[in-house]
Amino acid sequence: MGIIPVRWTEECVEMLDQRLLPTEEKWLKLKTFNDVADGIRDMVVRGAPAIGVSCAYGIALGAKNFVGMSVDDLEEELDYVCDVLSKTRPTAINLFWAIDRMKRTFQKAKDDGKSVSEIKQILIDDSKAIHEEDIESQRLIARFGGELLENDSNVLTHCNAGALATGGVWGTALGVVRGAVDQGKSVMVFADETRPYLQGARLTAWELLQDKIPVTLITDNQSGHIMKKGMIQAVVVGSDRIAANGDVANKIGTYMVAVLAKEHGIPFYVAAPMSTIDFDSASGDDIPIEERDTREVTHVQDIQLAPEGIEVGNYAFDVTPNEMVDAIITEKGVARKPYIESLRKMREDG
Amino acid sequence: MGIIPVRWTEECVEMLDQRLLPTEEKWLKLKTFNDVADGIRDMVVRGAPAIGVSCAYGIALGAKNFVGMSVDDLEEELDYVCDVLSKTRPTAINLFWAIDRMKRTFQKAKDDGKSVSEIKQILIDDSKAIHEEDIESQRLIARFGGELLENDSNVLTHCNAGALATGGVWGTALGVVRGAVDQGKSVMVFADETRPYLQGARLTAWELLQDKIPVTLITDNQSGHIMKKGMIQAVVVGSDRIAANGDVANKIGTYMVAVLAKEHGIPFYVAAPMSTIDFDSASGDDIPIEERDTREVTHVQDIQLAPEGIEVGNYAFDVTPNEMVDAIITEKGVARKPYIESLRKMREDG
Repeated sequence: MGIIPVRWTEECVEMLDQRLLPTEEKWLKLKTFNDVADGIRDMVVRGAPAIGVSCAYGIALGAKNFVGMSVDDLEEELDYVCDVLSKTRPTAINLFWAIDRMKRTFQKAKDDGKSVSEIKQILIDDSKAIHEEDIESQRLIARFGGELLENDSNVLTHCNAGALATGGVWGTALGVVRGAVDQGKSVMVFADETRPYLQGARLTAWELLQDKIPVTLITDNQSGHIMKKGMIQAVVVGSDRIAANGDVANKIGTYMVAVLAKEHGIPFYVAAPMSTIDFDSASGDDIPIEERDTREVTHVQDIQLAPEGIEVGNYAFDVTPNEMVDAIITEKGVARKPYIESLRKMREDG
Repeated sequence: MGIIPVRWTEECVEMLDQRLLPTEEKWLKLKTFNDVADGIRDMVVRGAPAIGVSCAYGIALGAKNFVGMSVDDLEEELDYVCDVLSKTRPTAINLFWAIDRMKRTFQKAKDDGKSVSEIKQILIDDSKAIHEEDIESQRLIARFGGELLENDSNVLTHCNAGALATGGVWGTALGVVRGAVDQGKSVMVFADETRPYLQGARLTAWELLQDKIPVTLITDNQSGHIMKKGMIQAVVVGSDRIAANGDVANKIGTYMVAVLAKEHGIPFYVAAPMSTIDFDSASGDDIPIEERDTREVTHVQDIQLAPEGIEVGNYAFDVTPNEMVDAIITEKGVARKPYIESLRKMREDG
């Protein structure tokens, strides 16, 4: 039934520890919302849609573990839970989307006069619904996106926008690949390793091997060379946040791949659920870019790669301007330029 | 007096083991030409000019260790020595340049009727001269190239084209930076780490720290982002081989940086001694591209980064087309487009 990186059980939230892949498959049992927040912050789970699902489960867990008696006290507790979760990964918009949705669900239940125990169950049910809807969204992204890929084509993808980065099964960018394969097309993937965190080498390579989809690993440095050699027919990536005008924030290096695709006349596609679109950000300039610990660059586990005391830049994301994006694939269909109109229309058709 | 990565002593050739930098500074004593060949192949020393100097020392060592009595037997031995050395790193033209020069030196000595022991000394002296000339070339490259950089500018460099990659002291691309600093300019360097072998993180960062030139390490993925943010005023790289038309073979990822520089209107400079120019290669299409062991991509020392059985691409070099190169800086001065003329003229003026 495919790879599902996070799941709700009666006792806890379970997460596949993606930090240990591909050499070890270990599931963590997270018993409190703080454990879930740590899991998101420490990248046990990563990828915007997966962060959204995990955040919803974290809120549900916060509600479930609440020991007070009044709805008002539960509301106060949930505000605190959401505040902690909101500070884990600033760029992924799905985090805030999940918080908003769960808060609205709470508010409706409160307005409906539900009891504390009823509200707990409503929040748990809604977090599961968010998860199911996410998987259904990826299935539709796979279907719409799969149609954009040619038979016998090679696709370059950056980072991991696969089942591991979402609620599971399909993935966004890898959903597009899986959709094409599902439609009977032959597709080969070039996965760039995606320094410093190596999501391509560790996760994309692992997940495509599981699904027996042909994949070749390259360093990030090789994408220009293989495009120049005519070895790539399409680029497909995911996104951590898409502005209202179609500017795309995604893993650092996405912009570089987009510039290279433009130089070589290769279509550049972004696959993401509607929950990744931030209609409150007018353009990419409004999207905060997370900077992460420099040790991610200077070390691999305990091995020191760079001299002591070196100054390091470690921007985790970049923004690809909308004019370099040939299509944005969502569960509602395929949006084309100008995105300010096509994305808004998709939302309104909702 | 600066960093010198390879040196001739009375007993042996000594090489700074660049595989251990930046965490350990260890000198290897290479007592046979086979040791030198291994040192080049295994990347104890790397960088086209440094490979050229090392190769010349390897040939001198082969001559010195020759135990026969006749000049003809010495010639046969040297043919064998040169054959072994020529197979170590196929892209670096300086290797073949050094072999040609040492063979011509031998031929002249033989034609002049020198004895075996005289020829040995002549070859040792010429290898030392090659080394001294190389350092002098970098000094001139530094002077000419330094004039191209603006005061208070940030320079992006790829891989290591520093003292470590040459006979020493200046370097080619880092020679240009050192030249600008020498001329009183304030220059800051962004060094990309240069996967998979991490010459940027390990060597460029180390070298510039030694010289107290400000340097910030980034992953290869970040260069597009920082160019877009206006943080880079010039790109300077070295080269492993330059074709007669100015196409530049250099470390994989150089082409990517050149495309990004073009997109952002940033000048892209190549710094290399004349010995790097291969007038027998009409264009970059004629330059062989070395493919290296895939383990360089899948592992860092003993740490496995990618799943077992993954297909891997590991092209070591790429070719940047001449139209993306704003200047080629050699010890003869600064060549501009069209390179087919300017490079030839530089040679003829020689």
